[in-house]
Amino acid sequence: MLDEKLTKNIGLRGVTVADSAISLVDGQAGRLLYRGFSIQELAQKASYEEIIFLLLAGAPPVDAAISQTREDLGRHRVLPKEIVAGLKSLPLNAGPMDVVQGVVPAFAATDSLCGSDDRQLVYQSCLRLISGFALAAAAWQRIRLGKEPVEPLPDPDISHAASFLHGMWGRIPTKGEAKLMDLLLILHAEHSFNASTFAVREVASTKAHLYAAISAGVGALSGPLHGGANARVMGMLLDIAELDKVETWVTERMAAKGRIMGLGHAVYKTEDPRAAILRQTAEKVLAGKKEEKWFRLCLEVEKVGRAKLKAEKNLEIYPNVDFYSSPVLYGLGFPIDMFPVFFAVSRVAGWCAHYLEERFAEAQPKPALYRPRANYVGRLCGTEGCPWIAHEQ
Amino acid sequence: MLDEKLTKNIGLRGVTVADSAISLVDGQAGRLLYRGFSIQELAQKASYEEIIFLLLAGAPPVDAAISQTREDLGRHRVLPKEIVAGLKSLPLNAGPMDVVQGVVPAFAATDSLCGSDDRQLVYQSCLRLISGFALAAAAWQRIRLGKEPVEPLPDPDISHAASFLHGMWGRIPTKGEAKLMDLLLILHAEHSFNASTFAVREVASTKAHLYAAISAGVGALSGPLHGGANARVMGMLLDIAELDKVETWVTERMAAKGRIMGLGHAVYKTEDPRAAILRQTAEKVLAGKKEEKWFRLCLEVEKVGRAKLKAEKNLEIYPNVDFYSSPVLYGLGFPIDMFPVFFAVSRVAGWCAHYLEERFAEAQPKPALYRPRANYVGRLCGTEGCPWIAHEQ
Repeated sequence: MLDEKLTKNIGLRGVTVADSAISLVDGQAGRLLYRGFSIQELAQKASYEEIIFLLLAGAPPVDAAISQTREDLGRHRVLPKEIVAGLKSLPLNAGPMDVVQGVVPAFAATDSLCGSDDRQLVYQSCLRLISGFALAAAAWQRIRLGKEPVEPLPDPDISHAASFLHGMWGRIPTKGEAKLMDLLLILHAEHSFNASTFAVREVASTKAHLYAAISAGVGALSGPLHGGANARVMGMLLDIAELDKVETWVTERMAAKGRIMGLGHAVYKTEDPRAAILRQTAEKVLAGKKEEKWFRLCLEVEKVGRAKLKAEKNLEIYPNVDFYSSPVLYGLGFPIDMFPVFFAVSRVAGWCAHYLEERFAEAQPKPALYRPRANYVGRLCGTEGCPWIAHEQ
Repeated sequence: MLDEKLTKNIGLRGVTVADSAISLVDGQAGRLLYRGFSIQELAQKASYEEIIFLLLAGAPPVDAAISQTREDLGRHRVLPKEIVAGLKSLPLNAGPMDVVQGVVPAFAATDSLCGSDDRQLVYQSCLRLISGFALAAAAWQRIRLGKEPVEPLPDPDISHAASFLHGMWGRIPTKGEAKLMDLLLILHAEHSFNASTFAVREVASTKAHLYAAISAGVGALSGPLHGGANARVMGMLLDIAELDKVETWVTERMAAKGRIMGLGHAVYKTEDPRAAILRQTAEKVLAGKKEEKWFRLCLEVEKVGRAKLKAEKNLEIYPNVDFYSSPVLYGLGFPIDMFPVFFAVSRVAGWCAHYLEERFAEAQPKPALYRPRANYVGRLCGTEGCPWIAHEQ
C-alpha cells in the first residue's frame, strides 16, 4: 500500500514546509549563509555574540547592538538555585544530553517572561536561555565529577565562549582557547531545517513556549544520526588509534558495509564549508600538541576513505562538520559524551531564531500547526471481521 | 517568493510522510480506529491496559497478554528517589507541563535498558515509562501543594487509571472514579500524526532514545493549539459561568472574531466520535453533582455556537474531544493546568507505539531522518553587496 506519493516524501526530502530567511544551505555549491553572510566570512570576522544578534534579530549588528547583546548575555549569566538543585538530584551517570534536555523546561519556571506572545519579550527569553543553557551544561560537567558549579561571570567583556569554558573548567580560558571555542560556536550555530530545528518549529507551531520547543530540539539533536555524530567520529578515531591502521580499518569497515563516520552529508554534495574551515583551524591549533595525532588520523581517514569510496562505489564523498570538530573538541579536553552537548550549546542560537520565525513570521499564509498525513496500512475491522473480545476487568 | 508548492505544504496538510498501522482518523466519516478497532467498541469493551497492549504490540490482547501487561505496569510503578528529588527541586509555581516534559529525560538515567536497539527491550522501557510518567505527574500535583508523594501501588489488579488517581489523591479511587478515568485514558491514547506524535517520530528518526522522543511529544502537546485546548475550554466555561449568559458570550466572541474553544477540528469534518462518547458519559456521571452545571453549559455553548456558525458563516462545526472532556476532568477534581497533563498521561501510550513503529518498522523503504526543505526568502549578500563590518572584539 506504499503509494508513489509516500515514497517521494520519505524523510520529507525535498518537501518545502515553510519560508525561512535565517540560513541558506546550498548543498550543490557547498555554500552556507547565515542571514545572507557566508560562513567563511563570519568565521573570519564575527564573534558568536554577533552571530546571536544576526540570527535572532535578522540584521547585521551595529556597535550598539553588539554591546547590548553582550550586556544582555552577561546579565543573564545566572544559574537559579532551583536549576542547580535539579542538576544535583540526577544520577551521576545520567547522559549529558538527557540532562540538558530536561533542564530546559526547568528554566521555564524561573523566567517571568515565559509564555509571552510578544516577540520582544520572547527575544529576551532567548538571550536568557542561550546564557543559562551554556551555564547549566557546564555545571553538569562539574557536578558529575563531584565538583561544585562555579559562580558565573556576568562581565559582558567576557565572551559567551569564555563563560562556557569557565563554567566547565573553573578557570578563565586563555585568549586562544576562548577564540577557538568562539569559532566552534559560530560554525555550529545554524543549519536551516535539519531534524532538531524542525522539531523546534514543530513544537513552536502549537504555540508552546520557547523552552518546550528548545527542549524538543535537544532531544532530536541527541540522536546518533544527528548531533551524536561528532561523538561517534571521535569513537572511530580512538578505535583506529594509529595512522598505520587506517587502511585496514577502512577496508574492513567498508567490507562490513559500515559507515565511515564523518564522511558524507545528506545535503552537501561537495565539501561542507564548515569542515574546510575546521580542517585549517585544527591543523593550526593542534600543531605540536599531543592531540595533533587525532588530526593526522582524520586527514588519513579522509584520504583513504575518499579514495576507496571513489574507487569502489564511484562516490565523491567529503568530510562533514563533525569530522574535524572532533579532534578540536578533544584537544580542548571535552569528554566525548559532551561533544553533542557542545553542539546544543551552539545550536540553541539557531533554534531560538527559528522559534521566533515560526511564531512571529509576517509571511502570508501564516504557518499552521504541522500535522502531516500517515498512509494507513493497518487492520480495518469493519470489513475484515475481527470483533473485539471483551475480557474480565 | 512564496511558491505554489510551499502554499500547498503549509502545516504539511495532506503531505503523507510515512506508513502507519497504529490508528486511522477518518475525518470525513467521523471514524477513529485503534489498530483497526473502532473507538466506540473499545470505549465500551476494553480497559486502558488492553489499549496499551493493542497499540504497542499491534495485536488484540489475549488473556495472557493482558495479565502480563498488568503485571509489567504494576512492577514498573516505582518513583526512583532521584525523580522525586528532582521534582522537589523545582519552583512550586512551575507549569505542570514543563515539569512532566523535564521529568521524562530524567527517567532515562534510571533505566538500564535505555538506548537499546532491541525492540523487545524498548517495548519494556515503554511500559516502564507509561507507569512512571503517570506516577511522576501525580506526584507533582501533590508536591506543589506541599504534600509528600504517596507510595505507589504495585498490585497489578489496581488499574493504571486507579494508580494515577491514587498518586494524586492519596486514596484509592472508587470503582466509578477509576472506570471514568479509564475511559478518559482510552479516548485520548492515540490519534495518528498530530503535532505531538509527529514530534515524537521526528526525534525517533534521529535514533534518539525513547525518553528524548517522548519528552519532545510532551513539549508539543503543551501548546495552546494542541493539548492545551482542554484547559482553554474549561477557562471559557468558567468565564461564561451562567447558562443565561451563553448567548451573549458567543455573540460577542464571534463579533470579536474569536474562536469558541472546543468547537471544530482540523481533521474531523463531522462529529469527533470521542466527543459523542464523552457527552453521553458526562451526562451520566455528572447528573446530580454540582459539576453538572458545567456540562449543561457545554450543551448550551454547543447548541448556540453551532447554530450561529451555521447561520452566519454557513459552517457545520462539531465539538471535539476537548469540549466534553473538560467538565468531566473538572468533575474529577483536576486543577485546570493539570488537564493537559492528564492528556499526556494518556497519550504516552500512543507516542510509545509511534516510537516503536518509527524505529523498528519493517516497511521498505525505511523511514529516514525527517529533514524537510525551507523556502529561502532571506538576504543574499553575494549578489546584493552587503559586506560584513568587522567590529572590535
